[in-house]
Formats: sequence, C-alpha cells, structure tokens
Amino acid sequence: MATTYFSKRNLQFLLHEVFKAEELTKYEYFSAHDRETFNLVLDSATYIADTIMHPYLKDVDKNQPELKNGQVTVHPKVKEYLKAMGEAGLIGAGFPFEHGGQQLPEMISSCVGFILMAANNGMMYTGLTSGAAHLITSFGSAQLSEFYVPKLLDGTWQGTMALTEPQAGSSLSDVTTSATPQPDGTYTIKGQKVFISAGDHDACENIIHLMLARIEGAPMGTKGISLFVVPKYRPDGTGNFIDNDVVSTGVYHKMGQKGVPAMHLTMGSSDNTIGYIVGEPHQGLPYMFQMMNEARIGVGMTAAAIATAAYYAALQYARERPQSRRLNEKNRLDSPQTAIINHPDVRRMLLFQKAVTEGALSVLIEAARLYDISEVAEGDEKENAFLMLDLLMPVAKSYPSEMGVQSVSQSLQTFGGYGFTEDFPVEQLYRDIRITPIYEGTTGIQAQDLLGRKMTMKGGKAPQLLFAEINKLIGEASTFDDLKPYADQLTAELKGIQDVMASLVPHVQKGDIERYLSDATLFLEMFGIVVVAWQWLKQAVVAKQALLTQNPQGDDLVFYEGKIHTMKFYFHYEVPKTLGLAVRLKDTEVLTIVSEKELAL
Amino acid sequence: MATTYFSKRNLQFLLHEVFKAEELTKYEYFSAHDRETFNLVLDSATYIADTIMHPYLKDVDKNQPELKNGQVTVHPKVKEYLKAMGEAGLIGAGFPFEHGGQQLPEMISSCVGFILMAANNGMMYTGLTSGAAHLITSFGSAQLSEFYVPKLLDGTWQGTMALTEPQAGSSLSDVTTSATPQPDGTYTIKGQKVFISAGDHDACENIIHLMLARIEGAPMGTKGISLFVVPKYRPDGTGNFIDNDVVSTGVYHKMGQKGVPAMHLTMGSSDNTIGYIVGEPHQGLPYMFQMMNEARIGVGMTAAAIATAAYYAALQYARERPQSRRLNEKNRLDSPQTAIINHPDVRRMLLFQKAVTEGALSVLIEAARLYDISEVAEGDEKENAFLMLDLLMPVAKSYPSEMGVQSVSQSLQTFGGYGFTEDFPVEQLYRDIRITPIYEGTTGIQAQDLLGRKMTMKGGKAPQLLFAEINKLIGEASTFDDLKPYADQLTAELKGIQDVMASLVPHVQKGDIERYLSDATLFLEMFGIVVVAWQWLKQAVVAKQALLTQNPQGDDLVFYEGKIHTMKFYFHYEVPKTLGLAVRLKDTEVLTIVSEKELAL
Repeated sequence: MATTYFSKRNLQFLLHEVFKAEELTKYEYFSAHDRETFNLVLDSATYIADTIMHPYLKDVDKNQPELKNGQVTVHPKVKEYLKAMGEAGLIGAGFPFEHGGQQLPEMISSCVGFILMAANNGMMYTGLTSGAAHLITSFGSAQLSEFYVPKLLDGTWQGTMALTEPQAGSSLSDVTTSATPQPDGTYTIKGQKVFISAGDHDACENIIHLMLARIEGAPMGTKGISLFVVPKYRPDGTGNFIDNDVVSTGVYHKMGQKGVPAMHLTMGSSDNTIGYIVGEPHQGLPYMFQMMNEARIGVGMTAAAIATAAYYAALQYARERPQSRRLNEKNRLDSPQTAIINHPDVRRMLLFQKAVTEGALSVLIEAARLYDISEVAEGDEKENAFLMLDLLMPVAKSYPSEMGVQSVSQSLQTFGGYGFTEDFPVEQLYRDIRITPIYEGTTGIQAQDLLGRKMTMKGGKAPQLLFAEINKLIGEASTFDDLKPYADQLTAELKGIQDVMASLVPHVQKGDIERYLSDATLFLEMFGIVVVAWQWLKQAVVAKQALLTQNPQGDDLVFYEGKIHTMKFYFHYEVPKTLGLAVRLKDTEVLTIVSEKELAL
Repeated sequence: MATTYFSKRNLQFLLHEVFKAEELTKYEYFSAHDRETFNLVLDSATYIADTIMHPYLKDVDKNQPELKNGQVTVHPKVKEYLKAMGEAGLIGAGFPFEHGGQQLPEMISSCVGFILMAANNGMMYTGLTSGAAHLITSFGSAQLSEFYVPKLLDGTWQGTMALTEPQAGSSLSDVTTSATPQPDGTYTIKGQKVFISAGDHDACENIIHLMLARIEGAPMGTKGISLFVVPKYRPDGTGNFIDNDVVSTGVYHKMGQKGVPAMHLTMGSSDNTIGYIVGEPHQGLPYMFQMMNEARIGVGMTAAAIATAAYYAALQYARERPQSRRLNEKNRLDSPQTAIINHPDVRRMLLFQKAVTEGALSVLIEAARLYDISEVAEGDEKENAFLMLDLLMPVAKSYPSEMGVQSVSQSLQTFGGYGFTEDFPVEQLYRDIRITPIYEGTTGIQAQDLLGRKMTMKGGKAPQLLFAEINKLIGEASTFDDLKPYADQLTAELKGIQDVMASLVPHVQKGDIERYLSDATLFLEMFGIVVVAWQWLKQAVVAKQALLTQNPQGDDLVFYEGKIHTMKFYFHYEVPKTLGLAVRLKDTEVLTIVSEKELAL
C-alpha cells in the first residue's frame, strides 16, 4: 500500500501561495479565521484520513454493503468515521456558527473533502450529509433546521440527495414521485428513487432524504417539483421515532466506490411515508440547483483526489521498480537494471498524471474561492464571482473526472501487469474514479450547460469576465522572459475559443440548438484544456516570484522549479490537443448523417 | 444481457468483400479451402460462443479461479469449452493437416478468436494452447511434436507461454530461470515465473509450459536464453505421468479477465523439474519473437472483440432507453421522452465506438492477411508481406487495445449510472479490456518497436511499402467525387508522418536514442490514427463500389451507406487528433527537464 496519497506541500502552495486563502478572512463572515485555523482543520482531516480511512481502502472495497432482511450493512469502520467527523466538526465545517458549524470557507472545507477522498473514496458519506443539511438550513423552516441539522452535523444521522428515478436519470423534469398534501401540512410521499448514495445503512441512527417529488396537480416539467425532507424514521410527536415506510428495495452492486451503498428506495408501498416540505412548493429544482455548484465541486474534488492517490502510488512504484537499462545504454547488459522512472515513456506518464491532478486541484480551489466570494461579498464583486463560478463549474466538475479517469489509467499502466492485480491499489482506484464523469450531471450534461447556457447568459458576460482575468495573468506572466512564450500561447488559445464560438453561434441564431450543441462535449474538452492552462500559468508565476524573491533552498527550490517544469510539460503536451478539437468544432459535417439503423448493422 | 455481441455482417464484409479471403486459396497451402469452408469454421465458432461462452460471461467473472491445496479450480464450463473447441478442430484451426490441424489461414483463425472473445473473454484458454503447440511444431523435435501436440490440439492438455519473471517483466534479457543439462539430454529447471495465464487449472489433464530459461554458462542477455517444454506432469518412461515439481505458488487476483487464472509458478523447489529443450540452445528469444506477431494479433483481436461486445450492448441500451426530449424540442414537456440514441452526444459516443471497433478489426484482418502471405508466398511477395506485417504489428496490437479501452469507456458512459452497476455487462468489459494495453508487450514497448526498429529497418523499406500501398488506395478513392476529399486528407496525413520522422531522425544520427524515442508512444498514436484512416477509406471504397454496381436494397443498402458515413465520422472526428500530436512530436522541449525529485514533492 502506498503511504503517500496526496501532497501536503502542494495543497499548502495552492491554498496559501496561489489563492491566498487568508484574504477571505477580510470578509466579516470568515473573520474569526486565519491561516492557522485553516491549517488546523486540514490537519484534523488528515489525522482522520490517516487513521480511520486510508488503512481500510482495500477492506472497504472488498466488503461491499449487502441488503439482508431489509437492512443494509456497511463496513464497521464507517460508524467510527462518522463519529470522528462529527466530533471534529468536519461535517459542519462550512456551516454558520448558529447551526453549530465552523463557518469555514468552501475553499477549506472542499480541501478537507479532497484529503478524505484521496485517503479512501469508498467512505464517501459525509459530503452527502453536509449537502442535505445545507438544503435544510438554506431553504427549510427554522423548525426543520432545529430538528434535523444538529444530528446530521454530529454524524448521528446520515443525509442523502434523493433526486434520480428509474425513468428520470438526467431529466429531472420527468420526476414522478408524488406528494399529497395532508391536513396537518405534511405530505404523503409515493414513488421510487434509484442510485441514492448512502441511502440506507447501519452506521447511523437515521437517514434523512432530501427528496424531489411532485405535488398533485403541480405544473408539468421543472416548475412543478418540490423538495421534501423524508426521514427513514419519523418523529411520532411523543419524542419517539416510527418507521416512515421508506423501503430499501435493492442495493446496486457497482464496479467501484463499493464502500458506499447506492440504494433503490421505495416510498409509500404501505401508504405510510410522510414528507416535510422544504421552503415553498414547486421550488424544488431551483433549490437543488442552488446547491449544485457545491455538490459538483465535491465530485470534482473526489475525482482529483482519487487520481492524486493513484499518481503517488505509481510514482512510488516507478522509483523502486528496476527494469531494463536506459535507452542510450541499451546494450550494457552487465550494468544493473535502472528504475523505470528513468525511462522517458514512464517519465511522460508520470508527468501527465502530475499535470492533470495538480491542474485539476487548482481549478477546483479556484472554483471554491469564487463560491466563497459569491456567498459573502456584495454588489458587483458578488455578481461577478457568481458568473465566473457558474462558467467554470462544468470544467471544475468534468476536467478532474474525465482527465482523472485517463490519469489513473496511466497510473495503472506505470505498474505494468502488477497494476491489473489486487496486489496494488491502482486497480481499485481505476474502478472507483469511473463514476465521476457520470454522477452530479454527466459530462454530456456539463457540456450542454457550458455551451448552451453559461457561454451565452447575460450577453456572454461570464466568458468576458474570465477572459479579462486570464488576460491579467497573461500580462503578469509576460514580464518573465521564460514564461512569456507560454503567456503568448495562452493568448492564442483564447483566440481559438473565440473563433470556435463565432463558428457555432450562427446555429443558435437559426434556432438550431441541436446543431449548436451537437459537439458540446468536445467544446467542453477544449475549454477545459485552456482553463487548466491558465491555472498552470498562474502556478508558474507564483513559483517564479518565489524563486526570484525568496531565495528558496532544498525541497522548496525543487518544488518551485518542478511547478514551472510541469507547467511547461502541460503547455507542450496537453495544450496542442486543442488544435484537433478546434478543427472538429469548426467543421460543418454533422453527426445526423448517420442513421440509427446504420449504427446497428 | 445484450444478445448481439458482434456483427456477422461486418465480419463477412471485411473478410470477403474488403480482404477477399478466398484469394488466399490460390496458394497451395490453403488450396483445400474455399469461402464456404471458411464460413463453416466461423459458424462453428459462433455456435460454441453462443452456447458455451456468452451465457456465462458474468458467471465466469463472478467465480474467479482459486488456489486451494496446491490446486487451481476454474469455472466448470471451461472444461466443456475446451472439449468443444478440440472436437470442432478450432484449437488447431491454423495447424497443418500433418499435425491434425485444418490448415486454415490466420485470417480465419484469428476471426474465430474474435468471435470467441467477443462472447466471453474470460474464457481465454485456447489461444494460449495454440501458441504453445505452434512453438513445438515450428521449432521442436518430431518426438516433442508427436507426444505433445495432439493432446494440446484436442483440448485435453493446456498450453502456456511462460516468459515473465518477477525481476524481468518487459525485459526478457534479464530472465534468470536456470536450466542445467542432464546426461540424458533433458534439463533440470529452477526458477519462478509470474503472470502465467492458464498456468494451472483443473479443466484439463496436463499443463504444458513453453518456458524461457538460461542454460548454465550461457551468454548474458538475449543471446543466452533457451526454450523448453516444461509439463506439469511428465512422462516417466513407462507410459505413466509423474509430478514435475511445477508448484502453483499463487494465483493473482485481477481486476478483469477473471475467468483465466494468472499464475505464479515455482519450478525446482524439490529439485525435480525436468524441461525438454525446443530446437537449439540459446535460440529461445528468436523463437519466441517469431511467434510474437501471431500472439499480438491475438491480443489485438481480444481487445477489438471486447470493445465490439460493449458497443453492441451500449447500442441496444441507447435504442431502448427513453430520456429527455430532442434539443430542438426541449420545452415540449407534454411529448414523450425520446430514446437517448437521438441525442447528438449519445450518437457521437456510439459512432466513436463503431469507428474504433470496426477500424480495429479491419487493421487486424489486414495484419492476419499479411501474416498468411508471409507464411505461404515466396520471394519478394513473402518478404514484402513480412515487412508490412512487422510495421503494422505495433498498431494492430496497440490501436485496438488503447482505443478499445476508450471505446468501452464510452459504452459505459452511454448507460449513465447503470453502466457502473453489475446489472449490465459493460462494467465487466471495462475491467476486462484494461489488460490488453499491457500484455504481450505494453503500449510503450510497442511504440519503441515501431519507432526504434520498424520505421528504420532495411533503410526504411517497410514504411515505403506501406505508403505505396496507401497511395494506391488513395488513387482508387480519388476516382469517387465524395471520397476524394478524404483521399486528399489521407495524403496530407502521410506527409505529416514524414515531417515528424524528418524532425526525429537527426537525434538517431547524433546517437541520442533516448531523445529519439522519448515520445515514441505519441508517434505510435499518430501512426495508428493514420493507419486506421487508411483502413476506413479502404472499406468506404468497397462500399462505394457495391453501391454503384450491385444496386443493393434493404439492409445491404443501409450497411454500405453506414460504412461510408462512419468513414466520414472517423476522418472528421478522429483524424484531426494528429494535428496536436505532430506539433508535440516536432517540439524540441524534452521531458528530462523534470527531475525525479520534482515529481515527488
């Protein structure tokens, strides 16, 4: 088992040197904190990750949840984990003091998630609880908050997001779970939900579902869906709890992330499921979508974390495993074999992993920072941060997921045949990460969101803001001779995106949305490469400044030089991929030339 | 479970219309055959695949081999499968009549492998037996052949390729298993082998290892390695068999292809392992390498087969699964949901799978055809076919493997969340196919073989022959107005490869092999895209001719049009990827700028 699963040095660099987390404490809401309290929280997460999570990575995978007699049994360490997370205040890290939280920025709490998921992503329970509790505190009544939130945040109860239904996967407007108003203001709930992560298990005392359902007679589509709290056990009014008729109909057996049960739930099979409405009727989807950025940062962090853990496992193996001789000494059979890290092919695979994982983490922390500002700032600052965040979100969710899948594949390849065996952790991480381009909106959905909405909303203001930000960085980078070529390359890439948009927009003007969006996924890929190039250049500028002003020595010197070199790798190896993408995106040949039947023969 | 796992129509198209398999019967060696006997063999394989293999796809995965009390137990259907394959004459399909074979071309027997592996790649046993028997018939004594080959080819005994050792993965020159000559001409064998597929199991009566070992006092490196037959049970000279001290030390638990045990074997732990030399001492590696093309066609076929099975599963799902509305009707909530195949994003994913899998199968049949000609033709024809085959082999092994991994990933994505569950076969196929870029020479090894040897051997004669062949096809394609743009594009791609070579070769001239080969994997990727473009254009020309001359109707019409459209998809979506690769390959920035320590911090 690899002992390193993330780089503390890199996390500190990004949080404090690149994104200057402490600057957030200038806002009243975060003013109780400083760099030290931020780091204490990360240390606390690392302790839990090191002791309760990482040692059980394989064990949690090997002993997947089973449903027997209506009860789901999960790994015994989950209970210990939930308790430790509750006690450390980490489930409520981002919540206001008034709700018993630590009022920490998303920048910090999302990095807590990164550490935990790098250690053992099969114990992905608490992020769901935080998300559910956040829906209640944001939109629910004071009564709901008082009753549910404390036990969610202390780890006694589990929260879930119960959205997906068998007939409504990515299409939430087709949700059919019904809610019927009762005279006492509650609702009876009837329907089915699928793929509900942590939707039932025995490591907590109650499961609190934040569930989408349609109130009888509500308008069709997205405007008729409401949000409910639907507990597994509901209060009976006398201080006791009774069964709420939420039946675990099945547990999915999955390829990865086996530690977390994905449940098929049936509500109301005995006509005895009660739901408590959150906020106003018919506002369920708007509420959910207000939580979406946070949830998607969480998925991106999970993907970046898994890929990071795989990278460090591969790196360790590559440094230790002798095989063959260096290419320029191929015939020196009497010399000992060299470590495989000395083969250019292996070196390239490792650099790819480093460039992808550190680039992904960087864009995610950027997104979390924008999230925080959009929450606590005011006026234009708030508005602009929100627009930038909205624009970056499809990348911050998809780049870590899609490129993370490729990165872990290269980690596995680094091990050769051993990577395919259970003797090393990478085969598990390869299985685990594959869900990330699917949940919380598939890559295809993210792409439609980016090109269909974010690029054009408010007259294209979001990309204008982003490009202005990138151009500012380009200006800074250009003052350093050895960074200037990369700044110039980034300028050309921005132009490339504008050219692609110019060739696509006429389709919208003709009302042909399908044609406009048909290669949206490729646009997202191209846009993501450029956004991450910006992140790498930003890191390189900070490293360059440190080298010039701090006279760093030893590991620090190596670290900063490594950042600049990895930026160069990214620009030389990854950025050129946009060339082919741009050609494709400006192409006029369409997919619809191929009929369904042609595909089948 | 998907019921279609390959397209019989496409296989017939490639074998008979594109590659004109029957033309091989003009050679004396294949003269007993015709199109009908070829098809009978394929039907026979399909019957076994349909009845004994495909129904147990999941079951074989779920019940992986276990080692207990020194004995490896495999799925009970394996025994039935081996017997059926032996009885149908399929293990020896490619062997000469004199050895009890069917004297069929590799073109046909490799397609038998394709069908079997598409049905259930977890039953990958017989290809190993064929390979082992082929080594014996090619290089072993008549005595060895007479004793071992009949029982291998009738499925009573299992053959293996025992090359890899713990300290010598890709570096066979570092093999240390020792062979000590005995007075009777046999050798005592001592050492360890790892990852020996089908290296021990209870579905056969004996295991016959074709094993590399070093005779005491042999020269160092590749020139000192010999090949031995090392059976699990050896003849005692009285007509009985005794234990040959080949101990199953462990069975690897793998991420995929779980049906086939990958064994760790220890020879000589009781100083009682006897090996029988195959051919001349110190010729083990040359012998093995003469079998390599055949073995690598087998791996490529396995990868293409797995990806094909996943494609048909995804296609079926996409046609049946309703979700959301078409993009141009987004707000028509009262209309029923459309099948997801009607979403451009899903259509693109499916076309990608079709383009990759049918392109991969095409290049593999091309390779098999060249293999056959190189075996049975004479003079220049033989020599040229051999050179072309040698050049194409890295692509024919790596393109199906590397792109197959991506293709199955897109199959999984087509299913959304369901793809990640065990309810559908794709999660298994996603795990299974991941080994193919590793075994029989990793992609990195293939890339060094291509750029380091094949492109430059005999003064670059192999690429000259290939380019001449491609140019001939370009000439044909150019006579059709709607194919001409693609013919022109292919011409430009050939130029692109020549430009890259021109920028790389100076490194060799300076003796800097490491620099020359540092991005060999990217060169292989670029070269592979162009080779498969050639295959697609070739298919399109045949389809075009059929459309113009045969007046096809119904399914035939759709099939041929689908071929032309998929070719267009490939040229519009896949070929542009070479742009970025060429830029990278001509770049002068090198990987060695990043130190080992920089990677680790």
